[in-house]
Order: sequence, then C-alpha cells, then structure tokens
Amino acid sequence: MKYLVKTAMRGAALLPIAIAAVGGAVAQEASEVSAYVDNSYLFLIGGLIVMFMAAGFCMLEAGLVRKKNAAMQSMKNVALFSVAGIMVWLVGYNMAYPSETIAGWIGIPSFIWSPEEDLGTGYAASSDWFFQMVFVATAASIVSGTVAERVKLWPFLIFTAFLTAFIYPIVASWEWGGGALDSQFGFSDFAGSTLVHSTGGWAALVGAIIIGPRIGKFVNGEVHPMPGSNIPLAALGTFILWFGWFGFNGASQLAAGTFDDINAVSKIFANTNMAACGGVVAAMGLTALLYKGKVDATMAFNGAIGGLVSITAEPLAPSMGASTLIGAVGGVLVVLTVPLLDKLKIDDVVGAIPAHLVCGIWGTLIVAASYGNVIMIPAADAEGAIGVSYVGQLIGVIACGVFVSIASAIVWLALKFTVGIRPSEEDEVAGMDKAEVGLEAYPEFG
Amino acid sequence: MKYLVKTAMRGAALLPIAIAAVGGAVAQEASEVSAYVDNSYLFLIGGLIVMFMAAGFCMLEAGLVRKKNAAMQSMKNVALFSVAGIMVWLVGYNMAYPSETIAGWIGIPSFIWSPEEDLGTGYAASSDWFFQMVFVATAASIVSGTVAERVKLWPFLIFTAFLTAFIYPIVASWEWGGGALDSQFGFSDFAGSTLVHSTGGWAALVGAIIIGPRIGKFVNGEVHPMPGSNIPLAALGTFILWFGWFGFNGASQLAAGTFDDINAVSKIFANTNMAACGGVVAAMGLTALLYKGKVDATMAFNGAIGGLVSITAEPLAPSMGASTLIGAVGGVLVVLTVPLLDKLKIDDVVGAIPAHLVCGIWGTLIVAASYGNVIMIPAADAEGAIGVSYVGQLIGVIACGVFVSIASAIVWLALKFTVGIRPSEEDEVAGMDKAEVGLEAYPEFG
Amino acid sequence: MKYLVKTAMRGAALLPIAIAAVGGAVAQEASEVSAYVDNSYLFLIGGLIVMFMAAGFCMLEAGLVRKKNAAMQSMKNVALFSVAGIMVWLVGYNMAYPSETIAGWIGIPSFIWSPEEDLGTGYAASSDWFFQMVFVATAASIVSGTVAERVKLWPFLIFTAFLTAFIYPIVASWEWGGGALDSQFGFSDFAGSTLVHSTGGWAALVGAIIIGPRIGKFVNGEVHPMPGSNIPLAALGTFILWFGWFGFNGASQLAAGTFDDINAVSKIFANTNMAACGGVVAAMGLTALLYKGKVDATMAFNGAIGGLVSITAEPLAPSMGASTLIGAVGGVLVVLTVPLLDKLKIDDVVGAIPAHLVCGIWGTLIVAASYGNVIMIPAADAEGAIGVSYVGQLIGVIACGVFVSIASAIVWLALKFTVGIRPSEEDEVAGMDKAEVGLEAYPEFG
Repeated sequence: MKYLVKTAMRGAALLPIAIAAVGGAVAQEASEVSAYVDNSYLFLIGGLIVMFMAAGFCMLEAGLVRKKNAAMQSMKNVALFSVAGIMVWLVGYNMAYPSETIAGWIGIPSFIWSPEEDLGTGYAASSDWFFQMVFVATAASIVSGTVAERVKLWPFLIFTAFLTAFIYPIVASWEWGGGALDSQFGFSDFAGSTLVHSTGGWAALVGAIIIGPRIGKFVNGEVHPMPGSNIPLAALGTFILWFGWFGFNGASQLAAGTFDDINAVSKIFANTNMAACGGVVAAMGLTALLYKGKVDATMAFNGAIGGLVSITAEPLAPSMGASTLIGAVGGVLVVLTVPLLDKLKIDDVVGAIPAHLVCGIWGTLIVAASYGNVIMIPAADAEGAIGVSYVGQLIGVIACGVFVSIASAIVWLALKFTVGIRPSEEDEVAGMDKAEVGLEAYPEFG
Repeated sequence: MKYLVKTAMRGAALLPIAIAAVGGAVAQEASEVSAYVDNSYLFLIGGLIVMFMAAGFCMLEAGLVRKKNAAMQSMKNVALFSVAGIMVWLVGYNMAYPSETIAGWIGIPSFIWSPEEDLGTGYAASSDWFFQMVFVATAASIVSGTVAERVKLWPFLIFTAFLTAFIYPIVASWEWGGGALDSQFGFSDFAGSTLVHSTGGWAALVGAIIIGPRIGKFVNGEVHPMPGSNIPLAALGTFILWFGWFGFNGASQLAAGTFDDINAVSKIFANTNMAACGGVVAAMGLTALLYKGKVDATMAFNGAIGGLVSITAEPLAPSMGASTLIGAVGGVLVVLTVPLLDKLKIDDVVGAIPAHLVCGIWGTLIVAASYGNVIMIPAADAEGAIGVSYVGQLIGVIACGVFVSIASAIVWLALKFTVGIRPSEEDEVAGMDKAEVGLEAYPEFG
Repeated sequence: MKYLVKTAMRGAALLPIAIAAVGGAVAQEASEVSAYVDNSYLFLIGGLIVMFMAAGFCMLEAGLVRKKNAAMQSMKNVALFSVAGIMVWLVGYNMAYPSETIAGWIGIPSFIWSPEEDLGTGYAASSDWFFQMVFVATAASIVSGTVAERVKLWPFLIFTAFLTAFIYPIVASWEWGGGALDSQFGFSDFAGSTLVHSTGGWAALVGAIIIGPRIGKFVNGEVHPMPGSNIPLAALGTFILWFGWFGFNGASQLAAGTFDDINAVSKIFANTNMAACGGVVAAMGLTALLYKGKVDATMAFNGAIGGLVSITAEPLAPSMGASTLIGAVGGVLVVLTVPLLDKLKIDDVVGAIPAHLVCGIWGTLIVAASYGNVIMIPAADAEGAIGVSYVGQLIGVIACGVFVSIASAIVWLALKFTVGIRPSEEDEVAGMDKAEVGLEAYPEFG
C-alpha cells in the first residue's frame, strides 16, 4: 500500500491508451470510468472480507478462552470493532494520511477529509476509507486475544480507542502516509506485517506484561495449560481469517483496473494461499516431531495465521515456492515461540504474539530477499530512489516496536493507575461473563 | 469449465466489436458492456452476501434459543430460505414488480418474467431476481427468531410461504414496484427499513401475540429470563449480518458502472458501518448505565442490528456523523423496547421486534431529515415530483403496519384454527428438537 | 431502490460518452482490459467463496462427528486444505491442464506453468490457478467427512496428497483439459458433478469400505446411530457450502466480461439457488412422510447439498423450474441412499456419499435432458462436433468411477499395509482428539 508510487504506476499504464486516442478523448474517458469502478470494487470487496476477519478473530478467541469468559470475549470483539470504526472516522484516518507531518514521524491531521471529496486518486474516497478502517480494526482484534480472560471491558475499550485513533495511525503514516520510513529508509511493507500485525502484536505484548498472567497460569514455576473451550469455533475463526486475508493482501495492490494490476492481485491471491499452506504443514510437522506424533490443533491454526502474517509484507514479489517457504518459516516460528512465552511467564491466551508479532517481524525482514536484493543498508540509486534493504527493514521493525511499546505502555499504565484494568480476583475466578456480561456463554453445557 | 470452447466463444463475441470499430460507435458499446457487467456484479455480489445473512440469522437464533430447540431453529432457517426461494420464483417476484396495479396498491402479477428476458435495464435479469429473492428471505428470517421455541415446523413454513409469495411482495410493490407509496406520497425507503425489516417485524409481532409466549416465560406477573444456549454463535450471527448488510444497502444503489454510482455505493458502505458502530456503542453504554455497569451481550448484538436497520431507509444522504447518530438512536431504542415487550407479555425470543420493527420505523421517519427537508406533508414541486416528507414517511410506515398486521393475522389465525400452530405442552417442555426433529442439537453437552 | 428513476439516470450518464465518440480504435483496447479484469475478478471472487467452502465442510463435519473427535475433524480440514494447495501447485495443476496427453487419458504434466506467464486466455493466469486449486480442495473435503472418526491423521493426509496431486487432476484432464471424455464422447460436466463431487465421492466410498465402519456402528445386524455433537455448526456448514456454491457454479462460466457471459453467470446463480431449495424441500417432505412427521435436520442439510451437487453438471441450460426439479430429485436420492448405505454396512459419517456421489451421478446423467436432447449415444454432427448424449454422460460417470475407485483403493490399501490407517481400538474408543490432537474439542462441556 504505497499511494504515490501506485498512483504514478497507474498513470503510466494509462498513458499509451491516452496517446492512442486520436479522435477519441472518450475512449480514455470510458476506460477511466471502468478503472475507477474496478479499483473501487477492489477496496469495497477487499474491505468487506477484511471486515469479516473481525468475525474470524471473534470465533478464534471465543473458541480459545475458557467457557466462563466466552460471552465476554464475543461481546468484546463486537465492541472493539465498533470503537475502532468510530475512532478511525473521528481521528485515525486523518492521522494516517496527513497533509503535513513533523519531520515525517508525526502526521498533523487535517480533519477535513470527507467521503464526498474527490481525491483524484482513481477510486471512490469512501471505498478507501472503508478499506483502511477495517485494517485498523484488525490491529485492535490482535490485542483482544492476547489479554483475554483478565481485563475489564471498559478499560480495554479505552485502550482500543487510543490504539485505533493514534497509535496505529501514526505508525501507518510513516509508510503509507508517505512519512519517514518510506521516504528516508526505503522501508517496504506491502500490506502490513509490521504496520498492522506487529503493531497489534507489540500492543498485545506490552498489555500482557502490564496486566500480568491469568490467575493460576504460572504457579511455582509450572505452566498450567488452560485449554480453549470450543476448538471447532477456533477452526472456523482460522478459516475466516484465511478467507479475509485475500482481501487484506489482494486489495492492498490498491488498483485492479489494468492488466498489470489485476495480474498482481491474482498472483497475490496465489502467494497468500501458499504461505498459509506452508505455515500449517510446517507447524504440524514440527509439532509432531517435538511432541511424539501428536499435533496440537491450535498450533495448526496459528501456523496458518503465522504463514499469512509472514507473507503480508510482500505477497507479490516472491514466487509461489518462495511464498510457501516464507509461510513455513512463519509456522516454525509459531511453534518455537509459544513455549518461549511460557518460559518468560507472558500469558498470551490465543497465541497472537507468536503469530502476529514474531511472524510480522520475520515477514518484514525477508522482504529484502524477496526483491532479490543483497543490499544491506538503505542507499539511494542514481535517481535518488531508496532501495529496499535489510537494515532499512530492520529500522522499520525497530521504530514500530519502540514507538508502539512505549505508547501502549503509557496507555495501559494510565488505565491501571486510574480506572484499573483487572477485575477482582473473585470476578476473574468466577469468569468475566458473570462479572461483566451478566449472562453465561453456555448456560446449559456441563 | 471448458477452456477451448469458452475462449473461442469469447473471441467470437469480441469480433463484431472489433469490426464495428471504425468511426467508433463502439466506444459507447464498450462502456455499455462494462457498465452492464459492473451493475450485474453489484447484484450478484451484493445478493451473495445478503444470501449469507440467512446463515447469520440462523446462528443468531440458534445461539439465543435454549439447547432443546437449537436443532429445530437451525433446520427451520435452512427450510425457510428454501421455501422463500421457491415462492419468490413462483409468485413473489411478479407480485413485487407488476406490470399493472389496482390503484397502485395491489399489483397484478404477469407471471411472464423469465430470467432469459432482456429487460433493457442495464443489468442481467437473473442478477436482479437473485438480489430481490434474498431480500424476501430476510423478511422471513426475522419472523423465525421472534416466534422460536413454540411454533410447529410445518405451520411456520406455510406462514413463510404466504409471507414471501404475497405479503412482502405487495408491500414492496408500493414503493419499488412503482406503486402508490412511491407515486402518490413521495415515500422513500432506500433499502427497506420499512419494506423489508418492518414487514418482517410486524409479521413477527402479530405472530408472537397470536401464538402466545413460551410456557414459563411470564408467570404470576413475573418475567422469567430464558437465556440463550450459545452466545458465541449469536456473536457470529451478528457479524455475519453486519457483513451481509453491506450488500443489502450497498447493492440497493442498483448500479455501479459510473463515477456517481460507485461513489454512492462506497459512501453507503461507510455510512452503514458507522450506523452499526453507533448502535453497538449506544446500546452498550445505555445498558451499563441502566444495569449497574453490566452489559448484556445480546443488547450489544441487537444494538448492531438496530443500528443497521435504522440506516437502511437512507444510507446515502446522511453524513458519516449523522449515520452514527441515526444508528445510535437505533441502539437506544433496542435497549428501551426489550423491557417494554416484557411488560406487554409479548415473547420475542431473539429481540427481533426491537431491532427490526422499532428501528425500522425510526429509520424510515428520519429519512426526511436526512434529505435536509423540513417538509411535513407530501407536496409536489413545480415539475410534479413529490418530495420526501415526514407525513409521507409516516403514511408508508402506517400502510405497511396495517396491511402486514392484518394479512399476517389472517394467515396465523387460519393456521391456528386448522392445522394448529403450537406443539403440545408436553412437546414444548421437552423441546422442539425431540418433538419435531428427532435428534438433539447437542446430545453430549451437559 | 427505485427502478424507473435509476434507469433513466443511467441512460443520461451514458449519453455524453456516445455523443463524444468520434475516432477511437482504442475502444476495443479499453474493452479488452475491462473484459480481462472482469474475467479475472470472476475467478478471484468465485475462487474466494469456493475457498470458504473449506470452512463449510469443516463446520458440517465438526458438527456431525461425536464430541470426542471434533477437534481432530476441525484440524484435519485445515490440514487437508493446506496439503491440497501445495500438491496442486507442485503437480496437480499441470496434470489437469497438460500440454500433451497419452491418448487423451493421461496428461503429461509440463511442470513449466508459472503464474507470471501470460496465457493469452483473457484472464490473469494466477486467478485461474487459484480457482482450480479450490476445486481440488473440495474433492478432498468430501473424503474427510465420510471416513471421519476412525482414520489416523497422517495416513489421511497422505491419501489427500495423492488425491489432489494425481487422482483428481487426471479425471479433470479428461474433460476440462481437453482429454478423451471431451473430445471423443461429448461428455459435459459444467462445474463438476462428476469431476469434482463424484471423484470425491468414489474416493470416500472406497475409503469407507477399506477402512471399515466405526466400532459399534453395526453390531449384530443392528445399526446404532451415532448422532452428531453440534447441529447448529452443521447448519452453518450447510449455509457456507450453499454460499460458496454460487462461486463454484457461477465462476465456472469462466468469463464475465460480455453481455452473454454475465447473463449466464446470473442465470447460474438463480438456478443454483433453485436446485438447493428443491433439494431441501424434497428431502424434508420425504423424510416427514417416511418418519411419521419428524424431519431429521441432517437430511435437510444434505438435501441442500444434494440439490446443489445435482445442478452442478449443468446449471445454465435448464429453466428455473427444471433446476428446482433436478435439485428435488437430488434431495430424494439423499433420503433414499442413507438407509441403503446402512444396509450395506458402509459407514459414511456425514452422508457425503449420498450427497456428492449419488447426486453427482444423477446430475451428470440429466445433463442430456437439460440440453433438450433425445440423443442416446454420442454422435458427431455435420461439422464433427460430438453432441451431449445419455450414453456419453454415462461413459464419463463410469470412467470416473472405475478410475477413481481403483486408484483410491491402491492408495488406501498401500497405506493400510504399510503405515496403517486405523487407530488402535483403545484410541478410537477414547476418541481421536485424545489420541492424535492432544486436546479436547469441548473440554468443559458435559
């Protein structure tokens, strides 16, 4: 998602048609309408299925929490998507695509955007807003899964409001808003391995540390597994996320009205699928090796997600084989990171940190290789364009990590020392459903 | 899937265009094809995701009934969608879009429509049929939720047949078929707050009254809550409905092949989402205020649906802020109407009457304001066009309410006094699954 | 939604374009781009929702197995989709669309296909790859349901690898790869009643016979029902499959960029829906007749699937009424075949053999009638084209049955006598979740 570059490319693609139009200024006109419609459809359909990822996160999380927290988790996902939508409209969209920035790091929101405005970008303004909004919601959903089962409803929603109004949009502006990462370091993150998934992952990690683990999870140096209550729902969530990811990556091509663009969208679909396949097979194979032939279903599910996150930073350049490998490494990282978090006594209920943060970092770093580069540090070519490099990618990863961690910590700590973020011990043991939702997820089941 | 043949056909299809391209009457030809395809795609994709709303209603309802009725409720949703499809094909479609009407109130179905016919409307005839069919099914799904847990299978399906063949199509014809509401009162209902959602809501309300409440719901003046058995499924249903609503409202623009149309579809997407967000936040906030900080998850879910219904009558004209407010009022109405129904001893199992009927009325009345009108009564302008007015909108609401209530009452009462609509007390207490489905929804759970 | 107004507006919008059209050879150019985009979109969107059918199969199967196998069944569906994706990329796609064949029966894969290649086919190469890949996965999902609850994970995945790399692609090549069935027998199977659904069905049938029934299913000549653990999930699976089928059949038109093509896609949508409706109503009606008024919910669900499979071989030619009837016969076949399999002591856990194999055969044979033919045997017309005939269709059905049965038997038997396909009796009784997944699907439910 790189607006200026993409728009320029699109302009170039249309040029020959314009030149060929001799008696017919109209022909170009006609194709402009078609391309405009095709591009807008890409955002709307892509955005639509990314919106549905909210249901995927909801099912994954509701399936992986214990019974006594499943209604809370379900409701929280509906609520966070709503808060995200409102905050993106009020603040976030203008922060992410600012008209001016402070040294390329902090956008000054103009607060003048309206969906009616024709932005001259080759697509309907509202279709882009819709697409960006569902991306923000994805970042918020990631946090929700990690800190499940021991965070109060309203403080979580206040965190969501800050994340979606300020934290995510500022990070996104560095690259997609034409900010410093893009212009100064050649950082490249096609659909958001870092900007969306790692951002959500860092916020989740910091939240998990500040909130602390669930009561009973780590006792006397032992890890007590707290198995999810509804594995088929988690499988459904995984499939919905996989489904939505075609929109996430595919529509990040930002245009579909030319041969080149629709070819690119199509290749992205194929690569995205291969990465997920690679992630599942690698995670299952490795788990079977490590755990005497048994395959933890949640590892398979998170393997799919890890593979998808890994390919998100660059789903277009690699071959299908390379995409499979990139996803497979993601699946391996998931399997290796889960026990590591346990050792660090970080309680990540659904495994979002391995899948979104660790794989997000991996996916971002490998972009340099996907471009066939051996460039280590960002350097400008003869025309002043800065190429994709390993160090440039690393700078993006670090910048995101430092900023999101600090900003998230400030918000989580402010909440902790004001309204409080954890329920009482009694409430947590009884379950959040009784404490905050006032009904049970499954009142008649066992 | 037959590559050679298809490719050859496609080649042949393009040939005449190539030959004809001389001084270029073709330009228009080409753009006509594109617009025709774009418009048809809008109906197909929009219709597709509205079709999926059937799954949403099914999950919402299966999640909100008790365990002993969940298989019945699941099967009933599959069945009603099937009955609706057949009745719309046999009768409903021709009733809704009649070639002649009796004074604009009762269409005379021509029974000649066939999907092969080119209607000269700028889109494929079958794509429109598909889109209209799924709308009808939505109305039927609404009824299913309200009268759950105490209605026999076949009588319910007979009611569904009448609703989808006659009752809904007659109401739809008043506006979308060019009937009296449209031509005489300037009534405006973009995607069906009244025509679809209130129609379903009135039929549900009358059904709930005639069938009566579930055994044990209202005893000695006390209301006995009967909590839903599977809240995560209800959350899934909510998300699926939200997802489908983009098709419901977006594709009701009816065209997408021009700048203006695709801009409109895009704005509708954004507004539809804002209204849902507003509904959720308002419903959650108000519930927290009323019930000591606890938020009933079903209120959050119905808040989303109430917000969506509220914006359905006019998702294009309002700003995003106004859309949020319109949806928020919908969320408030849901929270206030649920206890009101309890007071009236009307047993609405899933809360469909607050969300679809009450918010449908609200959404329809506010259309006049969305158009920026202060016109109270319908009046023709200099060119004879009748503007949108509060009274015009109210007339539509009342006409729908009176007709659907009477027609539904006749069908429900006829069923009651012939085949009977309620199961025996014994069957109802044992659950409909045992009585009518012959298997249990969750035989191994608790 | 206001038909008359909208149409008029659209006419006006096109007018200036028509008037301005003067020179423009470009017009054709523009329409080529548009058609290319429209065609590719058809594959991508169609493929996307067919991909989602994987979630549908997962939910249907997870809902219809017993609690102790539901996590295994969920994971297996994620795994098989991943294995299918990798094998189709490595081998299958090139086998199905070979550059050379041995007498039209065995394709010689070229292994040179790459998504970058422009095939000159009027759509993006990768979009077609994606669409074909999800078809293969469908065939694999069918097998998974039948042999559930008593097959070990890895042997099943090895079978899946063979099915998706070789067995299915060889069958598909006979028709869609321009092989013998197509060129020599006039065999016609639009979207795969035989090539996809019967292929999966035969592999499932042979698997069920070789693996044998579940312990306790058939004891002393008595059939012991083993009811599914989660009927609402099975309903969800049914709706997701129904939803995905519009992509399955609709996008098999392979093009959408002309009047004729988009009209065809639209008609296919309508017909596909009618067939599903017919299947449900017929299955429910017949079950009610046979079982004293009770309607087994799983029969309604499989009625929908049976109806959909029945129309898949030819969803374009029949009228909507004929489509309803074709689907209704499918529904009847499902209801009659289920007890037949019990009599033969073939244990088909989810009823996939009736729905996919039996209805696949029925749907394929009736194609000759849908074309309005009374041709019994394949015969060439004056121009050498071979018409669709009953015998030609039967030859396709038999060829598929013989080849898939033998090939599947070889793979299943090889697995049986090497790594083994069944778990120990102890593991099977305890459930596959404990034995192979290491966690339970619903640890807290009953």
